[in-house]
Amino acid sequence: LELSELVFHAFELNGTAAFAVSGAMVALKKRMDIFGVVFIGITTALGGGIIRDVLLGYHPPKAFLSSVYIAVAAVTSALMFAVAFLLKDRYLKSEKKAESVNNIFDAVGLGAFTVTGIRTAMDAGNCGNAFLAVFLGVITGIGGGLLRDLLTGEIPVVLQKRIYAVASIVGGCAYYLLYRAGVDDTVAIFAGVALVFVIRMLSTAFRWNLPKAF
Amino acid sequence: LELSELVFHAFELNGTAAFAVSGAMVALKKRMDIFGVVFIGITTALGGGIIRDVLLGYHPPKAFLSSVYIAVAAVTSALMFAVAFLLKDRYLKSEKKAESVNNIFDAVGLGAFTVTGIRTAMDAGNCGNAFLAVFLGVITGIGGGLLRDLLTGEIPVVLQKRIYAVASIVGGCAYYLLYRAGVDDTVAIFAGVALVFVIRMLSTAFRWNLPKAF
Amino acid sequence: LELSELVFHAFELNGTAAFAVSGAMVALKKRMDIFGVVFIGITTALGGGIIRDVLLGYHPPKAFLSSVYIAVAAVTSALMFAVAFLLKDRYLKSEKKAESVNNIFDAVGLGAFTVTGIRTAMDAGNCGNAFLAVFLGVITGIGGGLLRDLLTGEIPVVLQKRIYAVASIVGGCAYYLLYRAGVDDTVAIFAGVALVFVIRMLSTAFRWNLPKAF
Repeated sequence: LELSELVFHAFELNGTAAFAVSGAMVALKKRMDIFGVVFIGITTALGGGIIRDVLLGYHPPKAFLSSVYIAVAAVTSALMFAVAFLLKDRYLKSEKKAESVNNIFDAVGLGAFTVTGIRTAMDAGNCGNAFLAVFLGVITGIGGGLLRDLLTGEIPVVLQKRIYAVASIVGGCAYYLLYRAGVDDTVAIFAGVALVFVIRMLSTAFRWNLPKAF
Repeated sequence: LELSELVFHAFELNGTAAFAVSGAMVALKKRMDIFGVVFIGITTALGGGIIRDVLLGYHPPKAFLSSVYIAVAAVTSALMFAVAFLLKDRYLKSEKKAESVNNIFDAVGLGAFTVTGIRTAMDAGNCGNAFLAVFLGVITGIGGGLLRDLLTGEIPVVLQKRIYAVASIVGGCAYYLLYRAGVDDTVAIFAGVALVFVIRMLSTAFRWNLPKAF
Repeated sequence: LELSELVFHAFELNGTAAFAVSGAMVALKKRMDIFGVVFIGITTALGGGIIRDVLLGYHPPKAFLSSVYIAVAAVTSALMFAVAFLLKDRYLKSEKKAESVNNIFDAVGLGAFTVTGIRTAMDAGNCGNAFLAVFLGVITGIGGGLLRDLLTGEIPVVLQKRIYAVASIVGGCAYYLLYRAGVDDTVAIFAGVALVFVIRMLSTAFRWNLPKAF
């Protein structure tokens, strides 16, 4: 059990870094200064959990109480800025590639954040409210990306392409149902994260998109 | 009294559906996928109440505790997507017309949400703070539309045209004053909702706008 | 001590007015109607404190409990609208000049809001959490401007140019450290505000910007 908790924390930290990278990359694309890049990086990494905690009534949000996550997000974003600053054109040329590599870590993070969100919602006494639990899991997973896009003047990408929120919903429901069915928590957690991860990877590989009306 | 409460709940449910329709229509215009359409629809329908509850300290926001409103918003948005998906061009051609029909239901919803918001603020112990009560009523009424426009990359329409927020403010003040004057609650509620409705209909019919500087 | 408190409140009120002016000016630029101008003005003036209080769990946010700040923000925004409405072209021609005059008052406000934010965070029992305290100070200072830009469809200017957030961070850290070092509170407050003010003035005069990657 201790090992599994360690692995899960590693997933979360990896997600924090991957989300910070995705935030920093969008901010760099918008030619923001170093403060903007770090601010967007941190917001992308911690924003989902902060929205969740505001909705659940945790004051201040947990993200502010553990300096590890803030530090990982800040350092990762600053590093991204430094890399772009030093490499210039070479950074711009490898942007797409970096994005698709980061996509893999991002998928692990999406899974871990979804599960953490559901757990936090249940710990706050909402065990029986499946919609709320899964919704807050999804918000923990996609909220940072929503804030990132709002703050950089983009229409949230999660509302438009690839199977992103739906991966979080499916994995989140799986975790919730397994947990409620009394399955061992470690198994439930890893099943949930794995499901999110696999759906993300498949939908990226096969360019799956949700149906559009037109 | 029981009948009047029933009627009021009908107003609220009608508002939930009308707001979901307006959210879904904007999302469809932006060519979002089915998740985006349903997400924006739900956010438009429930967003105002959620912002109000976050400001008042209801955790979790009441919207998450009654599945009826969520279900109405979700099903309505999904239906809008289905209609657009099936009709394609014919949907696009009748968009304007659908919008102006929905405008009528939307006006009832704006009135009902405004009154509910003021009542919730007063129930939370802010009876004597007229500004706070009316402000939270207006936020309950227009907050969903604000979020809809932010998430779809639009400058909030409520800040730019037609008498929308002002209808909510006037109706809200009327309800607040009548209630505080000791008038029967049912009378106060219906007066408030009716006032919002009439102002909205008149301003749409006569194309009233608030003054602009230039 | 009483005099110093009076002076500090004067700083805050001046900041409220200056922030409302900056909000109203952006809304006027976007051709919003009088409701839009006043709404954006109030949001810019009070938004930072409201976000801070939501994160700290003050329900309702303090801004709603003291009508002075709301009144100052509302009247200032309405006055800006009136001036623009009456002067028309002459207003537009003197826009840049008005902006640079307001910039001076804005700098005092940024300092005062930063210090108030840190103090509020510490009073809520987060004295030992330097990151949280300073972060909430900065959010109090820049949050209103962030909301203003989001609601008017702009990428937040604070993420892109001039030393704005960084002035707030530096002054905020100074105040926090002085306070924690046991320095007289009045001295600490004025040192913090003065530092923010001086950095803002210097960075405007010499057109300092933070480094960008490209």
